[in-house]
Amino acid sequence: MNLHLKTASNEELRDRLAELRVRYEEYKERDLHLDMSRGKPGSEQLDLTLPMFESLTSKDTYLTQTGFDTRNYGLLDGIPEAKVLFADLLGVSPDNVIIGGNSSLNMMFDYIATAYTKGVCGNEPWSRQGAVKFLCPSPGYDRHFAVTEYFDIELITVPMTEQGPDMDVVESYVKDPLVKGIWCVPMYSNPDGITYSDETVRRFAALKPAAPDFRVMWDNAYCVHHLSDEPDTLLNIFDEAHKHHSEDLFVEFVSTSKISFPGAGVAALAASAKNIADIKSRMAVQTIGHDKLNMLRHVRYFKNADGIVEYMKKHAVVLRPRFELVLSMLERELGGRGIASWHAPRGGYFVSVNVYEGTAKRTVKLLSEAGVVLTGAGATYPYGNDPADSNIRIAPSFPPLEELQVAMEMFCLCAEIAALEVILG
Amino acid sequence: MNLHLKTASNEELRDRLAELRVRYEEYKERDLHLDMSRGKPGSEQLDLTLPMFESLTSKDTYLTQTGFDTRNYGLLDGIPEAKVLFADLLGVSPDNVIIGGNSSLNMMFDYIATAYTKGVCGNEPWSRQGAVKFLCPSPGYDRHFAVTEYFDIELITVPMTEQGPDMDVVESYVKDPLVKGIWCVPMYSNPDGITYSDETVRRFAALKPAAPDFRVMWDNAYCVHHLSDEPDTLLNIFDEAHKHHSEDLFVEFVSTSKISFPGAGVAALAASAKNIADIKSRMAVQTIGHDKLNMLRHVRYFKNADGIVEYMKKHAVVLRPRFELVLSMLERELGGRGIASWHAPRGGYFVSVNVYEGTAKRTVKLLSEAGVVLTGAGATYPYGNDPADSNIRIAPSFPPLEELQVAMEMFCLCAEIAALEVILG
Repeated sequence: MNLHLKTASNEELRDRLAELRVRYEEYKERDLHLDMSRGKPGSEQLDLTLPMFESLTSKDTYLTQTGFDTRNYGLLDGIPEAKVLFADLLGVSPDNVIIGGNSSLNMMFDYIATAYTKGVCGNEPWSRQGAVKFLCPSPGYDRHFAVTEYFDIELITVPMTEQGPDMDVVESYVKDPLVKGIWCVPMYSNPDGITYSDETVRRFAALKPAAPDFRVMWDNAYCVHHLSDEPDTLLNIFDEAHKHHSEDLFVEFVSTSKISFPGAGVAALAASAKNIADIKSRMAVQTIGHDKLNMLRHVRYFKNADGIVEYMKKHAVVLRPRFELVLSMLERELGGRGIASWHAPRGGYFVSVNVYEGTAKRTVKLLSEAGVVLTGAGATYPYGNDPADSNIRIAPSFPPLEELQVAMEMFCLCAEIAALEVILG
Repeated sequence: MNLHLKTASNEELRDRLAELRVRYEEYKERDLHLDMSRGKPGSEQLDLTLPMFESLTSKDTYLTQTGFDTRNYGLLDGIPEAKVLFADLLGVSPDNVIIGGNSSLNMMFDYIATAYTKGVCGNEPWSRQGAVKFLCPSPGYDRHFAVTEYFDIELITVPMTEQGPDMDVVESYVKDPLVKGIWCVPMYSNPDGITYSDETVRRFAALKPAAPDFRVMWDNAYCVHHLSDEPDTLLNIFDEAHKHHSEDLFVEFVSTSKISFPGAGVAALAASAKNIADIKSRMAVQTIGHDKLNMLRHVRYFKNADGIVEYMKKHAVVLRPRFELVLSMLERELGGRGIASWHAPRGGYFVSVNVYEGTAKRTVKLLSEAGVVLTGAGATYPYGNDPADSNIRIAPSFPPLEELQVAMEMFCLCAEIAALEVILG
């Protein structure tokens, strides 16, 4: 098992490959159907939030603290108590918050769609400025990249480091006025689980993009999704931006999709007064308002930001053994063998593995043929194109532990087979 | 009181105006705050649906009939049982239905946004086809007009008749390939309460627009919102379109905003297979899915389309006295006096009154200064411009009956004052 790919003889490698192929065929005969493809909470996590539905019944009042009936039309940007809740969670003022529907992705899509079609804060629409571009720290979130790709915006790969996006590269690109923004998951990034360092956040706050309509899509999706007792910490981007008067550059997104229910949670954004007014001018045409009863349900259940932070410890109890399993399997099977590397995240939803260069697609294919579904290899890069064909995103949250165990055995097996195939030529 | 504006002498008119002004000042001193501006259900109606929240509690199952956990991500276009519910309501196949979020307006906005930015079913985006235009039967719904205006699409007023939009005018305009669509509220139209006649629906189905990307926005917002025991009937647009192979021309919208809760209901659309595929291709980038728990809540509560139809009779019981009051006040105060005309609707949410030509703005202003808020005069026309300055939309659903009585006394008073002012010059 301690065979190292760089030091072993060709004969040893060939024997090893033959042995692994026998094991692979044995797994294949078991007709497995395992899914580690998406960051979906498991049913044990979903059960945690069920009592929420007891907090809004026909005996309750449906009035906000300001006396507004949440069952009716009105309050375009959300009920006041939901604004307070999310403002506290993000460390901003409630005036800088807009509450959306169930999907922060939808809010991001709408933001990009507006920028493209109508322009940002009175600027010319991106669609009329020529070949505009967007920075995509990679590996990153495929659905982010897809939004900008949908609008034919050119996607530019920016390398991720252990501190966040490579800021030298970012600072260089933003000198181009056609570069209009960047996708960021600053805490427990998707998929690496990296939290941007203080220096990285400060360099973002100090950015001086050439484009007046440059925007940082600060998707703080995992802001309270800690797995460890010693969680990462992230500087407040608006506090830092304030020091440079650069608040207008940032639009921050958040949701309870992985706090309460995916698809039935509440999404929100935080932005400067100028951006909030700009966003509301579209919203006023787009809808009469989002689901205020669901906002009220969430506020009644979680009460405040501290309530959410406390509540997330229950999720951590469910998720931690899954991450521990994934990481210990990787370490036991592939550790120190020249086959793969990974980052051990202290929060979020993913473990990002870099397998032997040129083998990510082959590994995912081997797994798929044996009944284990992963996110497509390359999905974490713009246009689905991972130049090293190396990165694979593992989502450990959804399968039950015993299935995850089998899926990870398979993963390690297939990653090694693929590596041996390449080395042996 | 039976003074007719056309036959009375100038002196009689002057005396009458003086008398009415005294009464107006008396009302003004009462410091009223009455609102007949928007089609908001009253709290008595909202109370009707509260038991819905007892139909989805922590003891229930959250699986669809196909075994999908509605609490998690997935099912982009809605849960199967919601599709069946809305399909039955609209008389189409579930395959032709997409379930949205809480707002049919948002689905319409997204449809127009896609047509404008990306194009309809592979056609060139409207934004790249020059000065595209949209037909707006008027008086109509201000929020419809606002969506197309937002995208700088030229709005063309089409007169409403007692049978629906003037189809001679529509048929003439659609010969222009720059005319890209038309807004329709085919049943109990907003604000007239007119249901399109069979002939009108058939002429829509037989339309042969020059533009291959022409679309009829068939907003069936009031499809089950009857007030009378002898409700209007509307032909099924897709059945008629089928006879002409014109199904692709129509996208039908519906929601439970005025069935369950405004803002916390469920919206849906129905369209041809070709249009459904086109719409889903955007949705897949825009969101992971809408609120399936709210869909399930609605299906569990209403059970099926018949359940909704039966349920709407409860709403009618609450709404009917309000409409009767409005119509009887209009008749008593203004009937046969050459001041105003109106249509008595058998469903929907509005009474549309045409006051004396050139006095709608003045009437609304007089009312506003005395504490009665109406929809802005002109709002029912493109660009807020009613060429005759005559149409005013009354929304009787929201105020309690006693307030509605006072508001309508005021309305009739102010309409007459404004008319007398114009006649006396």
